[in-house]
Amino acid sequence: MYSFRNDYSEGAHPKVLEALHETNLVQTCGYGLDPFCSEAAQLIRTLCAAPEADVHFLVGGTQTNLVVLDALLASYESVIAAHTGHINVHETGAIEATGHKVCTVFSPDGKLTPALVDTVVQGHSSEHMVLPRVVYVSDTTEVGTIYTKAELKALRDYCDNHGLLLFLDGARLGTALTSPVNDLTLADLARLTDAFYIGGTKNGLLFGEALVMTTPCSHFRWHMKQRGAILAKGRLLGVQFKAILENNLYFDLARHANDLAFRLRDGITALGYAFPVPSPSNQQFPVLPNTVVSRLQEMGYEFEIDHAVDQENTCIRLVTSWATPEQAVEDFLHDLAKC
Amino acid sequence: MYSFRNDYSEGAHPKVLEALHETNLVQTCGYGLDPFCSEAAQLIRTLCAAPEADVHFLVGGTQTNLVVLDALLASYESVIAAHTGHINVHETGAIEATGHKVCTVFSPDGKLTPALVDTVVQGHSSEHMVLPRVVYVSDTTEVGTIYTKAELKALRDYCDNHGLLLFLDGARLGTALTSPVNDLTLADLARLTDAFYIGGTKNGLLFGEALVMTTPCSHFRWHMKQRGAILAKGRLLGVQFKAILENNLYFDLARHANDLAFRLRDGITALGYAFPVPSPSNQQFPVLPNTVVSRLQEMGYEFEIDHAVDQENTCIRLVTSWATPEQAVEDFLHDLAKC
Amino acid sequence: MYSFRNDYSEGAHPKVLEALHETNLVQTCGYGLDPFCSEAAQLIRTLCAAPEADVHFLVGGTQTNLVVLDALLASYESVIAAHTGHINVHETGAIEATGHKVCTVFSPDGKLTPALVDTVVQGHSSEHMVLPRVVYVSDTTEVGTIYTKAELKALRDYCDNHGLLLFLDGARLGTALTSPVNDLTLADLARLTDAFYIGGTKNGLLFGEALVMTTPCSHFRWHMKQRGAILAKGRLLGVQFKAILENNLYFDLARHANDLAFRLRDGITALGYAFPVPSPSNQQFPVLPNTVVSRLQEMGYEFEIDHAVDQENTCIRLVTSWATPEQAVEDFLHDLAKC
Amino acid sequence: MYSFRNDYSEGAHPKVLEALHETNLVQTCGYGLDPFCSEAAQLIRTLCAAPEADVHFLVGGTQTNLVVLDALLASYESVIAAHTGHINVHETGAIEATGHKVCTVFSPDGKLTPALVDTVVQGHSSEHMVLPRVVYVSDTTEVGTIYTKAELKALRDYCDNHGLLLFLDGARLGTALTSPVNDLTLADLARLTDAFYIGGTKNGLLFGEALVMTTPCSHFRWHMKQRGAILAKGRLLGVQFKAILENNLYFDLARHANDLAFRLRDGITALGYAFPVPSPSNQQFPVLPNTVVSRLQEMGYEFEIDHAVDQENTCIRLVTSWATPEQAVEDFLHDLAKC
Repeated sequence: MYSFRNDYSEGAHPKVLEALHETNLVQTCGYGLDPFCSEAAQLIRTLCAAPEADVHFLVGGTQTNLVVLDALLASYESVIAAHTGHINVHETGAIEATGHKVCTVFSPDGKLTPALVDTVVQGHSSEHMVLPRVVYVSDTTEVGTIYTKAELKALRDYCDNHGLLLFLDGARLGTALTSPVNDLTLADLARLTDAFYIGGTKNGLLFGEALVMTTPCSHFRWHMKQRGAILAKGRLLGVQFKAILENNLYFDLARHANDLAFRLRDGITALGYAFPVPSPSNQQFPVLPNTVVSRLQEMGYEFEIDHAVDQENTCIRLVTSWATPEQAVEDFLHDLAKC
Repeated sequence: MYSFRNDYSEGAHPKVLEALHETNLVQTCGYGLDPFCSEAAQLIRTLCAAPEADVHFLVGGTQTNLVVLDALLASYESVIAAHTGHINVHETGAIEATGHKVCTVFSPDGKLTPALVDTVVQGHSSEHMVLPRVVYVSDTTEVGTIYTKAELKALRDYCDNHGLLLFLDGARLGTALTSPVNDLTLADLARLTDAFYIGGTKNGLLFGEALVMTTPCSHFRWHMKQRGAILAKGRLLGVQFKAILENNLYFDLARHANDLAFRLRDGITALGYAFPVPSPSNQQFPVLPNTVVSRLQEMGYEFEIDHAVDQENTCIRLVTSWATPEQAVEDFLHDLAKC
Repeated sequence: MYSFRNDYSEGAHPKVLEALHETNLVQTCGYGLDPFCSEAAQLIRTLCAAPEADVHFLVGGTQTNLVVLDALLASYESVIAAHTGHINVHETGAIEATGHKVCTVFSPDGKLTPALVDTVVQGHSSEHMVLPRVVYVSDTTEVGTIYTKAELKALRDYCDNHGLLLFLDGARLGTALTSPVNDLTLADLARLTDAFYIGGTKNGLLFGEALVMTTPCSHFRWHMKQRGAILAKGRLLGVQFKAILENNLYFDLARHANDLAFRLRDGITALGYAFPVPSPSNQQFPVLPNTVVSRLQEMGYEFEIDHAVDQENTCIRLVTSWATPEQAVEDFLHDLAKC
Repeated sequence: MYSFRNDYSEGAHPKVLEALHETNLVQTCGYGLDPFCSEAAQLIRTLCAAPEADVHFLVGGTQTNLVVLDALLASYESVIAAHTGHINVHETGAIEATGHKVCTVFSPDGKLTPALVDTVVQGHSSEHMVLPRVVYVSDTTEVGTIYTKAELKALRDYCDNHGLLLFLDGARLGTALTSPVNDLTLADLARLTDAFYIGGTKNGLLFGEALVMTTPCSHFRWHMKQRGAILAKGRLLGVQFKAILENNLYFDLARHANDLAFRLRDGITALGYAFPVPSPSNQQFPVLPNTVVSRLQEMGYEFEIDHAVDQENTCIRLVTSWATPEQAVEDFLHDLAKC
């Protein structure tokens, strides 16, 4: 039975593996200073319409978050995040381990607004408190929602008016930018944020996140190395990103994931089940009776339990990816109907 | 022209790539909790004759060093290393960034002895000083030398008598264990150290280090995650290590690297050049006249400059690997003879 | 005009200064290893009926909190606190700067309960999340409330059942233990917590907090030194605590502070003003019209603004101490009546 | 018998205690924002001829070192120190605990020179190594030596040419500036360093170090608070420094300490004992036969053992202070002669 547990349950898209194959015995210097990384970085700068941007390649999301935030923050500065933000609960205190507080605000839809950010800023006024400095947002968010251009622009304006930096976690950026309700482009992100990353791990690579920094950050490679985040064979990241960003493959894969997620959503809705937070992307959170959840698990389906809604119902998470076959979705809906 | 700059200038051994191919679309859960990692860990426990050992897979050497040392050390504890130790100068203060001092002793051959360790231990006697707790050694060392079983046993005894832990950095463990002067086995390492790792990045994998912990370390996966060191698709590490450890491939590749290094050494010696520190492994450090060094660089050869010996001579570093072709060595010797 | 801004607006109680005078030229060794500290520690162990407790003297509250919590927590562990907890917002991220997350729960009365603590514990279940390990409470709390013996016992039981430690911040412990609604003793605190401290700075000393640890903590003096928290002339802490703890002076001073706070409370209530959170200790939080607040400030009274209640009213904080003269309270009430 | 163990074996100079007495019941706001601190800071700026300098008051030396260095260093930057530097071995890894490496150079006389600093700078050239940023010197050094104006100027020039900052630990600055071979003034220090501190703990105060920063450091009070280094009753530091800096008292006390140290030195020399490192300040390091050392200890004299010279002789440390009576020195010399 198919696992809808996550969008990193398989290896890489075949074209990515193929590129690794073809370049395998080419000798390059290490640490991401090779021609493949240069070409991939150049490609990204072009896609972002940001010819001056710094592009760095890192292995994973938590690693990227902790390196970037520590690099952007002075010792006494903090980052503002939604309570659902990945850096808040799901990274084992990785940000705090670099010495920085995560100031959180409650946000049921996983998004920050100027008003929410302002409650933190107003509450930190003297040397007895940390100084909020970076606003951390995710797109898609951890609950599947996405930012509109107007929303991101409003955050940008707030940041400009309050001396803050804006950092966007794009671990699932592919499904955000290909969502039917999206109106943002890579160029918008480069223009509206100080730093963001294009997530590869969850959209067709073996691993890899491409960080785009439009606000200069001194000695960023020193920060990377200090955290064990410079890959010896850095070329692997360049080769993979080059393969996935050429010919729009990155977006095609994300669109596939979204399409299948919507099919799940529509099929489950048709069966009479509800989705408390509507998601326009590849994570769907239906509420099912506990008995149905158990039946699905007994059949062999895998997925995460999000939370208990009440004594008889559970909200589960279903995730699709570039690798999800249509048949797996059909089978799931068929089996759900039988429950 | 061939680059002798490092042993991670190419991708992976073909059998490793092949294994990634074959398993690419198998769905597994993430974070190294998959069957491939289990099988690779089991294989390692068998090779190490350490059925109770904890095995963890990490992406790179600096990452492994910083996670392990922070996990083994309390806030006020330090690690003892040779001044040449990789953690001392070449990891951008990664250990200090986790809050721990590296106490160094001068050691021209890159190895620690009980007497050297004792100078640090004796010098730290009260709460005004850090408490040395872990002894860090590398095999091969950063200057190419290796430990004998007697030497490692002496360190183990010293550690036992002084309440210290022994951690061995095996980034180049393959070429150490296949060196003609080696008398250590994986089982010896598991028995004589508290933790060590089997380096994959420098011996045929795309990336990866297999950490073997025979002394239990509480909540080690929490430590890994906090430092961004749990790979989402952890399976990639299991698949690769499984492929390289089966049928003795890991050791065959290392032996190839050593053999070619010795051919370089013998050829260079025959041309009348000296090696100040004799190395029985895949890093060789000949002293060449500056004019010869320049000529080789002009021809396109790549290698690292180790240090200036005097105004007219330079010690360079030549590194061979599983991927070095015999012809590259012959060509180099031929061209050197012409200089 | 008198300042009700804080309970550390003056120097030390005369008997404390006198003790410093008398011992001034006695030579002792440094770092708190002197006879005065030994005697003070012994006195504290006796008062706490805890003959085995470790007693350490530190200079201030934030310093004590950060040293104790880092000493009790492994890298991946966190501390649970009320959102009002001093370590959460008012210590400039001091705990996070030692690498640890503060997990907060909303608590309008500033107190934790097993149910509140449990929401954090239940929400942290895997290596992707920090491991909550210490429960941090303050007595009095930051909003003036205090714990009863039953409440503290319930937290202790919860901690025992869930492998947690209990740490009590006693910066204002004097006014807590002498509050009319208090039923706790020093011996209860020693029995029910793993560590707590007897605040001296806010109750008659120049500075100083006496930490009582009933659960052993390895190498605590190493932790102190590493954070710059061993005072060279540690004797000053021993001398002061000895002076204040003899003849019940510590409690007499705290009772004085409480008595005057209640006179303020009763007088303000009689004038028709409300106190949203009732406080049985030396911090009082009345709500006054903005015009009245301004008038008081114009007269020269000093106090902190706690928060704006609505557009026309403000909650202020009035703090009394061992040094507050009765006349200052009478004058304040008299002047308030005139407003 | 007198203790020559340290220069912080007594309380404070009587004039300092008197000042604390006189100001004891004056109400001020906390955290060093009071009039006494303002006046002391102004006095220091005048003495330093540095009207723009930032002056901060901290409680002790280790605390000052760790707060200043963390404030001056980015995550990936390090501090250069002599191997004898107090921050290297004698502060329990306090600097490393804030995440920064201490790069040391061997220096038997405890002083740094441009040539010594340069060996570190030249050895750190890429993102695989920390970036040295601050040069740390002590005056007097830990072995009693002092810097001349020419020596400090040479370091300043080196720093300017290499983008480094210069920080001077003045825990024993009084005895340095009053040494017969000194030619530096407070104004020179303010001009030649980026930051330095005037040590009070070892020269007449109960506690306290006055930090003078001529190079601006953003949000320094945030750094202080985060490390628990803002004293609640900060006024105590202002009151004490005001008392000791008025009428030249600070320098008179230091001169007294030096004078008695020289009497010790001359008397011990006259008895035929040697001083391997000549010290022009209040720490003296004579070499005595082990039997003599034991006899002195049996008589009740206290001092620190510096190191064993050979099997029969020991180098001890004798420290004088503002509080050392002449008679104590005479008695010691008399008793030593008897041994």
